[in-house]
Amino acid sequence: MVENMTTPLLSDSEAPADALPVCLTSPTVAILGSGDFSRSLALRLVASGVRVVVGSRCVNRIPSGLFPDAVELRNQEGAVSQAVCLVFMAVFPEHYCSLLGLQSALAGKVLVDVSNGAEMNIHGPSNAERLAELFPDSLVVKGFNTVSTWELQTGAHDGSRQVMICSNSTEGKKKVVQLARQMGFHPVDMGGLSAAREIEVAPLHLFPSWSGPVVVTFLLFLFFYGYGFLRGILLPFLAQGGHNAFYRLALDLVNESLPAVALVTLALVYFPGLFAAWLQLWRGTKYQRFPSWLDNWLQRRKQLGLLSFLCAALHGVYSLCLPLRRITLHRLVNTAYRQVKAGTEEPWDELGVWRSDLYLSCGVLGLGVLSLLAITSLPTVGNTLNWREFTFVQSGLGYIALTLSITHTLFFGWDFAFHIEAYPFYMPPSYLLAVVVPCIVLVCRCFLLLPCIFTRLTRIRRGCESKRNCPVLQHHHVVANGIP
Amino acid sequence: MVENMTTPLLSDSEAPADALPVCLTSPTVAILGSGDFSRSLALRLVASGVRVVVGSRCVNRIPSGLFPDAVELRNQEGAVSQAVCLVFMAVFPEHYCSLLGLQSALAGKVLVDVSNGAEMNIHGPSNAERLAELFPDSLVVKGFNTVSTWELQTGAHDGSRQVMICSNSTEGKKKVVQLARQMGFHPVDMGGLSAAREIEVAPLHLFPSWSGPVVVTFLLFLFFYGYGFLRGILLPFLAQGGHNAFYRLALDLVNESLPAVALVTLALVYFPGLFAAWLQLWRGTKYQRFPSWLDNWLQRRKQLGLLSFLCAALHGVYSLCLPLRRITLHRLVNTAYRQVKAGTEEPWDELGVWRSDLYLSCGVLGLGVLSLLAITSLPTVGNTLNWREFTFVQSGLGYIALTLSITHTLFFGWDFAFHIEAYPFYMPPSYLLAVVVPCIVLVCRCFLLLPCIFTRLTRIRRGCESKRNCPVLQHHHVVANGIP
Amino acid sequence: MVENMTTPLLSDSEAPADALPVCLTSPTVAILGSGDFSRSLALRLVASGVRVVVGSRCVNRIPSGLFPDAVELRNQEGAVSQAVCLVFMAVFPEHYCSLLGLQSALAGKVLVDVSNGAEMNIHGPSNAERLAELFPDSLVVKGFNTVSTWELQTGAHDGSRQVMICSNSTEGKKKVVQLARQMGFHPVDMGGLSAAREIEVAPLHLFPSWSGPVVVTFLLFLFFYGYGFLRGILLPFLAQGGHNAFYRLALDLVNESLPAVALVTLALVYFPGLFAAWLQLWRGTKYQRFPSWLDNWLQRRKQLGLLSFLCAALHGVYSLCLPLRRITLHRLVNTAYRQVKAGTEEPWDELGVWRSDLYLSCGVLGLGVLSLLAITSLPTVGNTLNWREFTFVQSGLGYIALTLSITHTLFFGWDFAFHIEAYPFYMPPSYLLAVVVPCIVLVCRCFLLLPCIFTRLTRIRRGCESKRNCPVLQHHHVVANGIP
Repeated sequence: MVENMTTPLLSDSEAPADALPVCLTSPTVAILGSGDFSRSLALRLVASGVRVVVGSRCVNRIPSGLFPDAVELRNQEGAVSQAVCLVFMAVFPEHYCSLLGLQSALAGKVLVDVSNGAEMNIHGPSNAERLAELFPDSLVVKGFNTVSTWELQTGAHDGSRQVMICSNSTEGKKKVVQLARQMGFHPVDMGGLSAAREIEVAPLHLFPSWSGPVVVTFLLFLFFYGYGFLRGILLPFLAQGGHNAFYRLALDLVNESLPAVALVTLALVYFPGLFAAWLQLWRGTKYQRFPSWLDNWLQRRKQLGLLSFLCAALHGVYSLCLPLRRITLHRLVNTAYRQVKAGTEEPWDELGVWRSDLYLSCGVLGLGVLSLLAITSLPTVGNTLNWREFTFVQSGLGYIALTLSITHTLFFGWDFAFHIEAYPFYMPPSYLLAVVVPCIVLVCRCFLLLPCIFTRLTRIRRGCESKRNCPVLQHHHVVANGIP
Repeated sequence: MVENMTTPLLSDSEAPADALPVCLTSPTVAILGSGDFSRSLALRLVASGVRVVVGSRCVNRIPSGLFPDAVELRNQEGAVSQAVCLVFMAVFPEHYCSLLGLQSALAGKVLVDVSNGAEMNIHGPSNAERLAELFPDSLVVKGFNTVSTWELQTGAHDGSRQVMICSNSTEGKKKVVQLARQMGFHPVDMGGLSAAREIEVAPLHLFPSWSGPVVVTFLLFLFFYGYGFLRGILLPFLAQGGHNAFYRLALDLVNESLPAVALVTLALVYFPGLFAAWLQLWRGTKYQRFPSWLDNWLQRRKQLGLLSFLCAALHGVYSLCLPLRRITLHRLVNTAYRQVKAGTEEPWDELGVWRSDLYLSCGVLGLGVLSLLAITSLPTVGNTLNWREFTFVQSGLGYIALTLSITHTLFFGWDFAFHIEAYPFYMPPSYLLAVVVPCIVLVCRCFLLLPCIFTRLTRIRRGCESKRNCPVLQHHHVVANGIP
Repeated sequence: MVENMTTPLLSDSEAPADALPVCLTSPTVAILGSGDFSRSLALRLVASGVRVVVGSRCVNRIPSGLFPDAVELRNQEGAVSQAVCLVFMAVFPEHYCSLLGLQSALAGKVLVDVSNGAEMNIHGPSNAERLAELFPDSLVVKGFNTVSTWELQTGAHDGSRQVMICSNSTEGKKKVVQLARQMGFHPVDMGGLSAAREIEVAPLHLFPSWSGPVVVTFLLFLFFYGYGFLRGILLPFLAQGGHNAFYRLALDLVNESLPAVALVTLALVYFPGLFAAWLQLWRGTKYQRFPSWLDNWLQRRKQLGLLSFLCAALHGVYSLCLPLRRITLHRLVNTAYRQVKAGTEEPWDELGVWRSDLYLSCGVLGLGVLSLLAITSLPTVGNTLNWREFTFVQSGLGYIALTLSITHTLFFGWDFAFHIEAYPFYMPPSYLLAVVVPCIVLVCRCFLLLPCIFTRLTRIRRGCESKRNCPVLQHHHVVANGIP
């Protein structure tokens, strides 16, 4: 038995040699292929203390200095024969069959398939499965394809980069997992070789979690832009014939649509949470799964929030640009001109002054709170928060931002919504449309804070069940979790 | 003995089985409870290659698909009997006593208490200590409560998340430490079970390091806002009866107070460092500890700096909003009107043009430098800097930002401070008040750069002692440190 | 042999004691010196479960509470005698010789040199090499000097901080590597003790990768500022005698130069990539290394991009400040005055309105896209992207930002470039100069997208060789890499 104080200094690599499979006592690793990936892999392996042999068909054509000095360059047969256990296949998958001559030399060894898939929606076996068919006596492991050459060369700076690994051979997987850890990566076991397809296409994904939120935001923008165009430009032009306001397309209309989009998107961040709460109240339990669309929506809240922030920030910058416009200068000068013609100073408009100051203040503060939210959604900042702090920021500050944004809109709209001129062609102004969903969200949220409902929801979330669904288990409140 | 080249491929998990305690050879882990935490824990354990049995009172009520397929669901007795060594207690602490029937089955096993404390200031034993009393024959270990369910499910992405662990049993602690590492966490040993209280309330903290700086900043804001209200609005209103300037409350006064707060807070960032330097000079040694209030202050500099940046940024945005205000338009039009009435163009004011350009430039540049400081205070950005770079940014750039801010204020104030009208009711303008502390800090800093003082301070910081305090040890300059 | 399911719970520290060198069974570590670094090191070692003895010449002068309770304080001889294997030398290198009396006590032990170099360009042996000369019977290992005392005290939060280690003794290096890992650091083997010089000066570097880009940006700024000064202020002043436009120095000229610098710098980000592509096309292979200046340039693209963003952001803020200037008010009032004198309203200038709106829009959007690029260059954000996403952001969005910036400039310039008044003293306006390089980059890029060239380049990048360079190997397309 080990004594207590001895353990710390015993590291991963200190087990006695005699108790281990022979294969591990000489860790020379071979890499077949001499491309960029091979080179970066070799660099990293050498830096991790592994002896590396690179096997290439045309060794003499490799420029000197391309590989580090510690790497031995051989022809393919020579490299494989030196590799005691692990061989990386850094060749294009379409050339796997050209390696069939090495079949017997590779028998019993672990072949690591590092190739990427060519397209997202391909049918047929994955590269790794094809490799396993070609070399039935080898242990094929899929892995490392999600790591870029750049990360291989510099990755030591943050040793927690994930490497997905799968294989039908537990023995082979174990060896690759060890090597990955030694190289400073964080290996993740994805199961059998049938998972290789998924791993191979992983590097082809293009922001999968963003597509939905981006589409929603874009459609909202299109809607508000189109609505504003119809209401403010096209219909007046057709009706009054010749009243040309098309100059508003480039900036005014964009700056009218952006805040509407930002407001609705921000409300959409908090909508699914409320819906989930109502569902739990109605079902009386939290042990039924949410419908998958709600689950998806809940998982996209961060993206929706960031897009809302983006729109709000753009709206802010556009608004600050307003005094720089040619048209602003034009209007100012002509206002002064008319005032002079009229022969009086402009009267003091206390209400107007208060209104403009208040909606500017609410807007600035709302955007400020949204910025804090955006900053805490950065991975490292969020990681330093505990659960209570995270909830405080994301839920507490989020609702404050929503309230400030609604106030900003209402101060902006003021009493104009009650004048008939605000409804040309019976179309309300777009800020009125934009404020509907956020107000509903805010009212529902306040409703959930009513003591009777709040208590019931808390009980359900702590694992209690209402009588309706689970009459037998009334006295069993035990099934619960450590973190509410 | 192991040869040198063999070690790299031997991983953490490659020690021979016969040399180990029986308990470790079959790592099935049991989780009691089937709530959210239990589910997330099971997911992570399975993903880390551990076999998991979940024990629940009402197994048949758990919806299929809630737990991953690899998890076995049993009743509590069955789960405990399968667990060879480790049992996670994912039930609410108030239900611990309902598990007393499992006492003998749990004897000799490691019980991991993952519960949170209910409130910050509770007296009496911690949950883990109560658990240890209830199950005296088990090895109770506190841990994992600081990890959220979300981090359990996704944490593999950054394997360095801290997990605080404490226990009276070194054996038990060792096993939990190993498991935590295997799950991709960074276990931190907090000592005996008496530390459990502290670990349990850790997730209840709400930005503990921020409360002081936030309170200071808020009080400063209140002071400057109140002062400005008194000096600029209330007293003139009372004195002149009817001169109503209350419209300035919403935006003007806020935008006057924010830069004052930002300036004073930024000075407070550099004040304790200077104070510490003077203390070391006066004492002639660095081996006496600073008073605790100074230590606390030194540790809150980052927070103070970020709050200063927040105020400065808000001030910037508010200022940029000024041309958008209704009152600005009003003033412009009336100025033009009066110019026309007077019958002359406004004369060219070269000095005024220079002054406004200079204070705008200083403000923009000062805010820019503060932004760089704020960015480098992000954990990952700061981590990539070495000590010299960090000092250059935080101290060098910091003093540049302070100087620019002071210059900005002085250019803004210009010669107004020397006119009698600037002192209504004998109260100086708030920017004059705000500039006092920063100027003191700057002067003290320059004083410390005087060669004689600088040399002495450097010697003290390298570990030398002045004669006054340590006459015997004059020739011993050895006690020192590697990084000055 | 170990069975499969047993492995996960076997951790790094579970190997049997009898199979290990005696030195490891008692991991008491000694630290010589009692300065800040020694204290921080002791704190971290204790937190990692290591027993620590600190050796100091004047033990009784160390204030109680300076070191944690678990640390034993001894005189130097006592500390060394307790250390079974590892001794940290936390004393200034100039005092190494004062420890010669411990030579025999330190024989056979691993001495860790944690000192920093005093200056960048010193000749002669490194501190660690001098230590090795003084203690020839000890195993000297260089390491830990790049870690700051602050990271030692708090580093557990992110366990992947890099620690560079070198030594001529593999045995010694292995032990230090293990200890570093246990302390939560990521050890990186830098080879033999001759690398100690490089490790010692590492903390003295001041943004080595930034110096080139900063100099380039600064020179560009100087050029554009000087050019604008000559063209817009000095020459008109000399020519017309007395037309004083020197007030433009503080803000106008800076705000004219910044966008020009931002535009050129952004083009310089994409220039080397295009050059590399042309080089590959011309050579017909990717297996020849790029000239080193091109390699350097390619590696500085991130820094150039961030500096471009900084200039663009400053330009944005400066521009938004324009309405706040005294001179803007002056001009507005006088324009209104002249309008009144002329007796007509200012006529509607549709073209001018469109133009100003379009260049503002392009500017805002361009800056927005650049902000996204800057955010993804944060280490943690970039880490969450796969290769395709990274390319999409850095290359796709980058070219969009470049196009928007060029459009912004062209809309700003409009048809002024075709008027003779735009060329006083035959000098074109600076925005015309600034737009040249970006346009070239854009045209070259479009050229590379032509199908015939694109296909050829893709083939070369997949490892194919053109006939010209490698006639013998035509049928060998195998040498390739996993990630194109």
